[in-house]
Amino acid sequence: MADVRWLDDDEQRAWRGLMVMQDGLAEFLDRQLRQCCGLSNADYQVLAHLSEAPEGRLRSFELAALLRWEKSRLSQHLSRMEQRGLVARERCATDQRGAVAVITPHGTDLIEAAAPQHVADVRSAFIDQLTPAQLGVLAEIGDVVRERLGTLNRNRERTRN
Amino acid sequence: MADVRWLDDDEQRAWRGLMVMQDGLAEFLDRQLRQCCGLSNADYQVLAHLSEAPEGRLRSFELAALLRWEKSRLSQHLSRMEQRGLVARERCATDQRGAVAVITPHGTDLIEAAAPQHVADVRSAFIDQLTPAQLGVLAEIGDVVRERLGTLNRNRERTRN
Repeated sequence: MADVRWLDDDEQRAWRGLMVMQDGLAEFLDRQLRQCCGLSNADYQVLAHLSEAPEGRLRSFELAALLRWEKSRLSQHLSRMEQRGLVARERCATDQRGAVAVITPHGTDLIEAAAPQHVADVRSAFIDQLTPAQLGVLAEIGDVVRERLGTLNRNRERTRN
Repeated sequence: MADVRWLDDDEQRAWRGLMVMQDGLAEFLDRQLRQCCGLSNADYQVLAHLSEAPEGRLRSFELAALLRWEKSRLSQHLSRMEQRGLVARERCATDQRGAVAVITPHGTDLIEAAAPQHVADVRSAFIDQLTPAQLGVLAEIGDVVRERLGTLNRNRERTRN
């Protein structure tokens, strides 16, 4: 590490831009969702994944993978959402490995009420501010980085085993 | 809200790309930092801001603004970092409004040890995977969205007052 390649100004600007943009968007969307519908952004993501799944149910480990959350974080979050009647948890009949999370009718009502506001906020803060060309480049960047992270994570697994 | 403009496929791809990229990057960088240096990504951000400030000190509300964190989140996080000897907290002599956070010598050692690894990880997962043109567009997007969020947040303040 003697010869560190620090970020130059352009690289710094892109990296900080991404960081600040994502923190700012998360904060804005979270605040709007809480105000309109009493949901956090995290609640929204959980409900969105469940509502798109067959019968509104997912195994915990599948949900964790979709959210890219640690198991313990998901488990704590689902407990709080269960107390609020947004999700229910059931044992999986065919597999000991864990519970199944199911969206409740109340959770379904809330996500259906929240979705139009949420998409309007995503448009207002983000999508509608950008040109199709900028959106295209962003999608490309997303693909490149996702693929790269997949490679890095697989290499890491391999080294560990 | 009767006439919701849902995201079309290209918009969806850009938005999901951003979301997955940011979650994946955060997860990867967090894991690498924990492994190399026993720091979380959040610890790193706090220490980075303090180490760049004059005398390694910032008022809590300034630090919260730089991090874009809620006051309560910062306060809890600083308590844990204080217990680990990474930061100290002092009352502000000239202002009742709150404490000052200061990086400790131990915190300084850790961020100096972590920074080369962190920048290498940021390069490996992100910067070095992208072309200068892609980085330029990303920086532009960051500027547009940051400015837009500033406007939205100011409008919101004004409506509330």
